[in-house]
Order: sequence, then structure tokens, then C-alpha cells
Amino acid sequence: MTISADTISATTLQEVDERVTAAAGAARILRALPSSERAESLEAVADALDAAADDLVPVAGEETGLAEARLRGELARTTAQLRMFADVLVDGSYLAPIIDTADPEAQPAPRPDLRRALVPLGPVVVYAASNFPFAFSVAGGDSAAALAAGCPVIVKAHPGHERLSRLTDLRVRAALAGARAPDGTFATVFGREAGTAALVDPRVKAGAFTGSIPGGRALFDLAAARPEPIPFYGELGSLNPVFVTRRALQRRRRAIVEGYVGSFTLGTGQFCTKPGLLFLPAGHGLEPELVDAVRAVAPARMLNERIHSGYARELGKLASHPAVRTLVAGASGEGLDAAPTLLGTSIDSLRDHGDELLTECFGPTSIVVEYEDEAQLVTAVEAFGGQLTATIHGDDDDAQALQALIDLLVERVGRLVWNGWPTGVAVAWAMHHGGPYPATTAPLHTSVGATAIGRFLRPVCHQSAPQALLPEVLRDRNTLGAMRRVNGRLTRHDVTS
Amino acid sequence: MTISADTISATTLQEVDERVTAAAGAARILRALPSSERAESLEAVADALDAAADDLVPVAGEETGLAEARLRGELARTTAQLRMFADVLVDGSYLAPIIDTADPEAQPAPRPDLRRALVPLGPVVVYAASNFPFAFSVAGGDSAAALAAGCPVIVKAHPGHERLSRLTDLRVRAALAGARAPDGTFATVFGREAGTAALVDPRVKAGAFTGSIPGGRALFDLAAARPEPIPFYGELGSLNPVFVTRRALQRRRRAIVEGYVGSFTLGTGQFCTKPGLLFLPAGHGLEPELVDAVRAVAPARMLNERIHSGYARELGKLASHPAVRTLVAGASGEGLDAAPTLLGTSIDSLRDHGDELLTECFGPTSIVVEYEDEAQLVTAVEAFGGQLTATIHGDDDDAQALQALIDLLVERVGRLVWNGWPTGVAVAWAMHHGGPYPATTAPLHTSVGATAIGRFLRPVCHQSAPQALLPEVLRDRNTLGAMRRVNGRLTRHDVTS
Repeated sequence: MTISADTISATTLQEVDERVTAAAGAARILRALPSSERAESLEAVADALDAAADDLVPVAGEETGLAEARLRGELARTTAQLRMFADVLVDGSYLAPIIDTADPEAQPAPRPDLRRALVPLGPVVVYAASNFPFAFSVAGGDSAAALAAGCPVIVKAHPGHERLSRLTDLRVRAALAGARAPDGTFATVFGREAGTAALVDPRVKAGAFTGSIPGGRALFDLAAARPEPIPFYGELGSLNPVFVTRRALQRRRRAIVEGYVGSFTLGTGQFCTKPGLLFLPAGHGLEPELVDAVRAVAPARMLNERIHSGYARELGKLASHPAVRTLVAGASGEGLDAAPTLLGTSIDSLRDHGDELLTECFGPTSIVVEYEDEAQLVTAVEAFGGQLTATIHGDDDDAQALQALIDLLVERVGRLVWNGWPTGVAVAWAMHHGGPYPATTAPLHTSVGATAIGRFLRPVCHQSAPQALLPEVLRDRNTLGAMRRVNGRLTRHDVTS
Repeated sequence: MTISADTISATTLQEVDERVTAAAGAARILRALPSSERAESLEAVADALDAAADDLVPVAGEETGLAEARLRGELARTTAQLRMFADVLVDGSYLAPIIDTADPEAQPAPRPDLRRALVPLGPVVVYAASNFPFAFSVAGGDSAAALAAGCPVIVKAHPGHERLSRLTDLRVRAALAGARAPDGTFATVFGREAGTAALVDPRVKAGAFTGSIPGGRALFDLAAARPEPIPFYGELGSLNPVFVTRRALQRRRRAIVEGYVGSFTLGTGQFCTKPGLLFLPAGHGLEPELVDAVRAVAPARMLNERIHSGYARELGKLASHPAVRTLVAGASGEGLDAAPTLLGTSIDSLRDHGDELLTECFGPTSIVVEYEDEAQLVTAVEAFGGQLTATIHGDDDDAQALQALIDLLVERVGRLVWNGWPTGVAVAWAMHHGGPYPATTAPLHTSVGATAIGRFLRPVCHQSAPQALLPEVLRDRNTLGAMRRVNGRLTRHDVTS
């Protein structure tokens, strides 16, 4: 790979092999280090990126067209994420330690001493996303979670912000070296061929991806077809439907209009949690207000040419569908600009033309749908695939009438939002950013929040091992103060025999 | 499906469709029931099977050739497993509840109220194993874990014990009906075509399998190639190497010979944890004792014709390999009988002919290998794929010299046994029966032990939901007494605002 002022050439297959060799070597060293050292590494990376904001943000702005304030906020989120995982490591509980002491009297068979805790999976390939040049990119959530788990990371940079990726990579590697992380802990590769070569390398043990359904599915298929299939955590597409009850509309009409339009046009609609469908009760009379609010949103630059043209293509298909009305036609404007578009369709059309209408249109477009009653909503939702989110605007008095809808949504979504908006994914212990396919390729896992670390850890059970050969978190003395399950009970006490 | 005295015809595709329809309906009802009702169902199934032992065991014996004592023990293990999962449900902690209360001051962004807990995945297809007609079959560990999670189960019966499967299915369904579980909670299907049809049905959300590498891989590939890929938990093959140090041999020579021969011939070698390789220090002089001990083991009936002929074929390949010596040639004997075989090879041959020698031979055969020093062992182990277990016979004084070997083994195995034998998989909280491919298709998961329930649960996050719409385990009042992570801290206290 060579770097000139503006171009970065693709990483060669030879270079990929070297990176994976280094990662495999680092994996063995990392696994043996105490979690506290990994926590220090994560803090060092966060500090380095915060210190580099003035260098990184302008480059990110040039490459993505995103505004400075948004980028500074996203960088702050990214470093907060790295620090959150450092906090996760402090509590050895993330290793899910379980101890069953020997019980020769156990029925139906005597039980040996068994002690189980998690270990790192090994080198991980992370595919950066287009739309979050910091938070879902080189030093983003997937990288932070994998590093926290003790897994070396090889990032496949997104072509939409390669210069920023290169700069971020340099900062990350310098910070890791300063924190005495082993060589090979982190690398970034460029180019599609390098990205797939890394995934099929037998020394790589997992993949993580944020992006489109076709791109993510192709990589998932590669990971599953390896001689040794590996977990592939793809976060793909989502429609993020929003349902508004009659009572909610009566009480918060204006807030709903503003919140909806603000949410689906935020970031020029380039969020995986963009609300793509708004279900309103029949006779809502909200169209004039919605139209005015959408028209008031200025056109804004999309991330890059590929996304801009892809958006125009998908929008063209949707808007020209005979079952779809155009309420506001967002002019494309100059260059990469797009103004928001509002479409409308009937709930029967959604059912009859689900294959065409229930597809993600990545950009500032959303579809308004009228419904007669909750039963009709239930029928509509049954046609939905997996979603990252669904949102209900309701009233406490609606709870009973909504139960069937909520049950159906829980079957299909990762996060159910009540009287809020799906954009804005808090980095927190309880966040779940995931969901059944096609929201993700791994419905048991999240790509945001503290539990995202679990994607890169697997259990190992030690049977009858002497104390000296046990990982620290499984020894009798609970030096880490982890919450452990000992003979069936959760406790922080030492094991006493 | 029709039943005559001895034959059971294959389940038709129409019948499979009906079973899946019923399972999908049951899934919605089950999800809404409190865990305590599911616990009662599991207890009822366990009681029913215990009560039916005198009916079930003789049929199992006829179909598998396993001895009555073994089958009674296995049935006791099976019902203990069902009861263990009932215990797991008592503690709402298995739902991994996490609560972050709203924090408008949070940095870098305000945080809404977020509450995350696990929900059942949906209908699960369980593929029964040949070698455990109770514990890994109709009412075995996979079924128990899935039912405990709240997932309806469709078992694909193993052709080696279809009459027993049918009888067990009747008992399980009667017990579930008696415990008021919804119709469709449980079904058993027969025949290969029915088994694959169930797995590709879009309403099925996971598969679980115990069996051979080719069979498991074919089903894994089907699950991954679905329009909606689903998790497939396959427990496939393993060599379960055993390493004996010089010191251990000096101290426990006789116990090691007896333990090894007992372990690899137990159940006529038809265990996935059978030790297939024994590494002994050069100059061990153990051959005469090993040969005597192996010769002393009587021939015993293998499970069925398919396994018997498959074993003969694999053994023939191994024994005729130019790098392999035959120390004891187990005579095939009459019918399905097999007497144990002991082979030997050099550690260099293992490295040079790994593709031929490092393959599972399902039956009473094991290979003895001499090593010069720990460094040679490390080189040998680097050629190994994923293993369910590895075993070390050593002495506390060996710990330091063994560290590199142990590190390599931890990379590759699910369970590391110290001074014991891998056969005998205790059903306990801390058990991990899994490992990297080809030991399993899902290295993060176990098929035995309390944590096996996690395979059939996925997270859902509720954002800003009113108390009445939250699952019980996420409400402010911790009525279940679950261990929850609240604002970052593990606690059983109520949430107070």
C-alpha cells in the first residue's frame, strides 16, 4: 500500500497475508494479558483520537460531506465507546465466569470440578460503514468491541473515506504501541479484494460488518462457505416502521410531525435506523402539515456518488410504483445533494406489493401509510422481515389495544421505541442494535452497547485444573471481584472448599 | 405418518408443514407465558419419562444394543437435564436483564430509558443423535434447552431408534398437554426429507444437531443458504487428544493405562468425546500393558449397521495407512460386534499425513503417539482443528513447561481436562460441550449445561416503554428477584427513580 496526497492504493494479497500473520501472533500475546492492560489500550486510543480531532474532522468532512458539528459529535461518541468498553473490562463479569466445584455425591453422576469462562475468538475482520466515518469505521464500535475482547482487528476501510481511515489507523496504531499492545493488534486494509482475502484466511475467526443487504449477505455467504465457517456479524438493512395511534395524534400532533420529519431527514436519511414507514390512523388529516415540514428541509449533500446514485435509483423505483403517491418530490439539486421526499401508499398495497415497497431506500425518503384499526396493522406487520427498530407513538390507554401489535413487533425487531424516534442509538449497557435477518445476519448479537463484546468471546471449560493453570477469573480467590456463578448461585465471594 | 408394530413411515411434507404451522402458533403463546409455567412443563416431562422407564428402556435396548444399566443411567441423565433447565428458569437472570434509566445529562448525548432482555427465537428443529437415544434425542439436551427458552421444538428422529423416538414423543406430548403447554409446542418427524423440509421452512428460527461432520455440515449449509439464514448449532466431530507427561506416567502408570482404555472403549467407542489420540513420552515402554488392557476388553455390539460399516471402513483406511502400526487388531466378531483396536504412529507422521490421520474414527479405536518433548507436542497441536476436549495428564510441577501447550489447546478446544478422561460430560452450570469447527458449527455455544439455553434466546431492547408494556423482568419492581445490571451495576434491587 502506498500513500500519496489523495490516493491510497489497494492493499495487496501479500500485504493482507502479512497483516493476518501479525494478527495471529498478536492474538496469542493478547490472550495472555490481563484485561486491565487491554482497558488501558482502549483508553489510550480514545485519548489519541480526541487529541487528533482537529486533524481528523476536516478530512472526514471533505470525504463525506458531513457537517463539522455532526462529525465532532460522532468522534466524541466513538471515543466514549472505546472508554465504555474499558469500563466493561474492569468488571470481570464480562467473562461470564461459572464454577461448579467437585461433587462426588451428585446425582445421577458424580461431578468433577468444572470452571468455565470466556476467551477471545482470535483475529477479527471489521468492515467499515459508509455513513459513520468514525463510529462505525476504523476505530468504531466493532473494532472497540473486538479489541476489548482481546481479539486483534483488521479493518477493511470503506472506499468513501479512505484518507480518514488511513489517518485514523495511524493514530490507533501509535496509541496501541504506546500502550505496549503487541505488534499486529491492529491493521487497516484497503480495496475489495483485500477485504475478502482477509475474511477467507483460515487464521481469521470472525467478521463484523455494517452496510447494505447485498454487500453483507455476500460476505456472510463467504464466511459460511469457508472450510471452517466463522461467525459473521452483519448489520444490514431495516425499514424501522413507526406506528401512531389515534390518541397520540390527538395529543401530540405537532410534535409527531416535527419528530418524524426530523428523524427521517437526519443525516440526509443515511442512517440504518431511519424511519422508512409511518403508519397513521385513517382520517388523520396530517398531509398538509407533513408536506410543509418536509418542504422546509433544505437539500443536503449525500455521502458519496455511489450512495447518491443508488438512492436516486431506489427512489425512482418506489416513486414510479403504481401503488405509490408522491406527496413531496425532493429535487436532486446539484452534485450529491438531495432534498427529502415524502411518499404515500395504502396498507393494502403494502401487503400486495411487499417485495417492491418493503425495501430499504437509503436516503431522505419515507412512506406514509393509513390504517383503519389495529387488526389491519397486525396484518401489515406480518409481512415484515427483521427490523433493527420499530416505534409506537401511543398513550398509556392504548396499551391493551396494542398488545397484539407489540407481540408481533417483538418477534421481528431488536429495539422497540415508545413515543420517541429510532435515530440516535445510545451507547449504553442496555442498548440492542440488532434484530432478525435482514436487520442482521446474527440475531443473538448487537453491534452497539456493552454486550457487543460478546460477539468475540467463546467459552472454555477447565475440568479439575490446578489453581495455577486456571485463568485468574476462575481461581478460588475472586481477585477481580467478578460476579460469578458458583455452584448455581451468583456471588462475588471467593470459593471456599 | 403411520405406525405399525415395527415400522414407522416417513413424515410427509404436508405433515411437516402442519407441524411447523402448529409450532409457529405455539411460539406466540409460549412467549407470553411466565417462565414458571415452562419450568412446570419441563418437570412434567421429566416425571413422565422417569415413570415410563420400564416401557422405554427395553425398546431402546432392542434398537441400539446398549445395555440396560447404561440406558437407565442415560434416561436419568436426560430427566435430570430437563429438571436442571427448570431450575435455570427460576432465576430470571437467564434473561440477562439490563436496565439503563433515562439520563438527560449523559455525555456525549442524552440517554433515553433502555431496558434489554432476552426473548425466545421461535420454532427450533432438533436433529437427534444415534449414540444417545435418550440424552441427545427426542427429549434430550437440545429439546430441553429450546423448550426452556420458550421455543417450540420439532425433533427429527434418528433412524437408529425410531420406535423409541415415537414412544418418547408420545410421552413428552402427553406430559406437555397435561401441563397446559399449547398445542404445537412439541412434535417429532421421521425421515431425511422431512428433516430438511423443516429446516428450510421460513417459520423455523434455529437448528440444533449432534452427529457426523458431513451430515452436520450439510444441514449447516442449508441453514446458512436460506433466504433468511438462521443459527445452526451443530455438534460434529472431535479427536479429543490426551497428553501424558513423563512425571504423570511415573506416578500413575497403571491408572493411566486403565483410564485410557476404559475411556476409548466406553460405549464401544461411540462417544463424541472418545479419546482418539494418546500422546506418550518417548521411551514410555507402555505398549505391552496397553495391548493387554485392550485385548481384555470384550467385543460389544455397535449401535446399528450403518455405524458398524462406517467404522469398519474408517478403521480400514487408518490401519492400512503406511505410517500406522496396528498394536491390537480388534476382531469384528459377529453381526454388529466390534472389539477395540489400538493403533500407533509417529508424531512426524501425524504432521505429514494430518489429512488422513487426524480424522474421527467413530468406534473403539485410538492411536498412540510418541513425543520427544513439549516443543514437539506444540508443533503437532498446531495442525489440529477444533476439538470438543483435550486432556492433559500431568503433575503440578509440569505446569510451567506445559504453558505453551495449554495456550494452544485453549485456542482449539471447548473443554480442557486435567488428570481425568474426556468421556462423561457432566450436566452442570459450568459445563461447556462445544468448541471451534469442526467440533461444532457455532463456537460461542454449548449443547450441554445450563448455558445451552442461550442458543435459543435473542435480545430485545425496550426504549422509554411504560411499565405496563415491559416484560416482567424489566419492570422497576424486581418481582422475579433476577440479577440485573442497572445503570452499570449488577443488583437484585428494585429500580428506584
